[in-house]
Amino acid sequence: MSQEETRYGRGLAKMREIFGPEAETAVKALAATNPDLARYLVEFPFGDIYPRPSLDAKTREMLTVAALTVLGYPQAELKDHIRGALNVGCGREEIIEIITQMAVYAGFPAALEATKTAAAVFAESP
Amino acid sequence: MSQEETRYGRGLAKMREIFGPEAETAVKALAATNPDLARYLVEFPFGDIYPRPSLDAKTREMLTVAALTVLGYPQAELKDHIRGALNVGCGREEIIEIITQMAVYAGFPAALEATKTAAAVFAESP
Amino acid sequence: MSQEETRYGRGLAKMREIFGPEAETAVKALAATNPDLARYLVEFPFGDIYPRPSLDAKTREMLTVAALTVLGYPQAELKDHIRGALNVGCGREEIIEIITQMAVYAGFPAALEATKTAAAVFAESP
Amino acid sequence: MSQEETRYGRGLAKMREIFGPEAETAVKALAATNPDLARYLVEFPFGDIYPRPSLDAKTREMLTVAALTVLGYPQAELKDHIRGALNVGCGREEIIEIITQMAVYAGFPAALEATKTAAAVFAESP
Amino acid sequence: MSQEETRYGRGLAKMREIFGPEAETAVKALAATNPDLARYLVEFPFGDIYPRPSLDAKTREMLTVAALTVLGYPQAELKDHIRGALNVGCGREEIIEIITQMAVYAGFPAALEATKTAAAVFAESP
Amino acid sequence: MSQEETRYGRGLAKMREIFGPEAETAVKALAATNPDLARYLVEFPFGDIYPRPSLDAKTREMLTVAALTVLGYPQAELKDHIRGALNVGCGREEIIEIITQMAVYAGFPAALEATKTAAAVFAESP
Repeated sequence: MSQEETRYGRGLAKMREIFGPEAETAVKALAATNPDLARYLVEFPFGDIYPRPSLDAKTREMLTVAALTVLGYPQAELKDHIRGALNVGCGREEIIEIITQMAVYAGFPAALEATKTAAAVFAESP
Repeated sequence: MSQEETRYGRGLAKMREIFGPEAETAVKALAATNPDLARYLVEFPFGDIYPRPSLDAKTREMLTVAALTVLGYPQAELKDHIRGALNVGCGREEIIEIITQMAVYAGFPAALEATKTAAAVFAESP
Repeated sequence: MSQEETRYGRGLAKMREIFGPEAETAVKALAATNPDLARYLVEFPFGDIYPRPSLDAKTREMLTVAALTVLGYPQAELKDHIRGALNVGCGREEIIEIITQMAVYAGFPAALEATKTAAAVFAESP
Repeated sequence: MSQEETRYGRGLAKMREIFGPEAETAVKALAATNPDLARYLVEFPFGDIYPRPSLDAKTREMLTVAALTVLGYPQAELKDHIRGALNVGCGREEIIEIITQMAVYAGFPAALEATKTAAAVFAESP
Repeated sequence: MSQEETRYGRGLAKMREIFGPEAETAVKALAATNPDLARYLVEFPFGDIYPRPSLDAKTREMLTVAALTVLGYPQAELKDHIRGALNVGCGREEIIEIITQMAVYAGFPAALEATKTAAAVFAESP
Repeated sequence: MSQEETRYGRGLAKMREIFGPEAETAVKALAATNPDLARYLVEFPFGDIYPRPSLDAKTREMLTVAALTVLGYPQAELKDHIRGALNVGCGREEIIEIITQMAVYAGFPAALEATKTAAAVFAESP
């Protein structure tokens, strides 16, 4: 098995661990327009970065929820990663706490927008 | 009356002054998902900052319209604060002027997005 | 003919070259709420900057697609400029390539959002 | 006198009003590397936007201090505009108040960085 | 003891826990120019948010390192919080890992700048 | 030769093409603090993305100059890429033109900061 197959396979396995069976649907949807970006997404963030042992999956998802809350514009990605955070053992209370803390660093609008996105995710399985 | 009641009460009064009766609806909606952020929103921005005497409510709302135009992503908050600015004595012409000036500092896309949001607010009461 | 008529006329001609007949509709829609911003948009970016000879229209549109991908929030402007880039000779493959490269500089969320916007534009004329 | 001379002359006069005699030095320094940007800076922000009657010079400088605090990276421009705000009648207390309010919209790091820049300006004439 | 004394006292204690004895020096330096922002900084982020039990101090510092890496411009605050993260039990390897993960969400420039800042902090006690 | 060696080798060759002999010095400096980020930087942007045939090296560097100008905070990376753009055939006039165009999309402060950085690079070899 080549290194590239290893990176891709490892990345897809990590994505399934975080996002569940929706992972493959999302990669395919992206690949329909931008197949190389889909491949890089699997290989680099999820094949190279996320499997590294220094931080566990739950901590990584918490950091990503913080990052996307701060950026503000990527609410679709934030929605996916709030789902992912819940899947890997993060509690709703912790997600709300992360978003609240980000009011300090990126302002209240960032925390307000992320709270609305969290509310939409929480409403999916009440 | 405790200090905390003072901050919360003062903040809610300031929010009513700026946003009208919708203030309480907005706080309740936020509190349904993130009750502590709702409380901090009332206490810190509106209880601590906005009532300070160095700047009046109209000037504060103008500065906030500028800030949200520059950030770009929080169009929902910008909509609320354009309504707020109108409530505390800012004219439509002034709001448009602030947005136009922000083209200089954050680029034309920021001013174009904010103009669409202002148009949506202005259309509410023609 | 005054200088101002020259700038405005030159800008509108450049906008027609890039955006086609939709250019005038877009300027009129903006002018309904913010007539001066509409005039500045025609005069400064498209009357002053875009007609300058140092870069051709295709290169300018490619740079603008990069800039809007990085900013993240202005997906409506990105949609217009992806259409514009296609109009002035940029291929779909090049647009996708620009967006993919921006993953390096602004992160994967920026490239994912821009890919969705590109997909929406490409779907208009399949 | 042509329209362009009018815009440039009006812009330079406005810059002198805001920044004092340093205005011309700054324009010349910029023009040494990017003469067209120097001309556009005089003509568009200061020739077109700032002289418009809807907002006075003091209000415009206050809005710009807010915008630059939110952006965070342009501390050199913020320094110039804090000086400019003081020149056109803004008090130190008001500048500090604007910066403090921006903690709400762009987070504490934005307000902390801008406070350091304000401190540097205030130290120039104690 | 009033509520406000409680918030301020709790905030200062939390700052000492995170930043060590430098906490008070930093607050005093800020207070020299912006005393109210200094007070809000102690009361709101460190008095209200950080002491909340849902996340421990180490997790909060890790989230803040992520947030400041993404924002990019506040390298001075990032330096303080990398020191803080080390103080509350975060290893150098974990800090580097957080910064590396942020390359995915905010691009390589964000991770490169934060790595330089981490290197400067690590060099203080080799 | 494994796939990973191919990606790393191809990336380092591309970096040498763009940045000259300084490429290896920069990678080593980064690797002293964050060796994995150094490896990812070589492998992903320069091993995966830049060698792709859809855009040539000059166009890629022009897009990157645009992206870094828009982001504003990474002036160190902008400096490297202005040098890189010059190395792969971009003229000074074109770099200045890109920076000037970005005033439209990210505001004048972005263009002013980038012009100062360009001036510093141009001064290295007058």
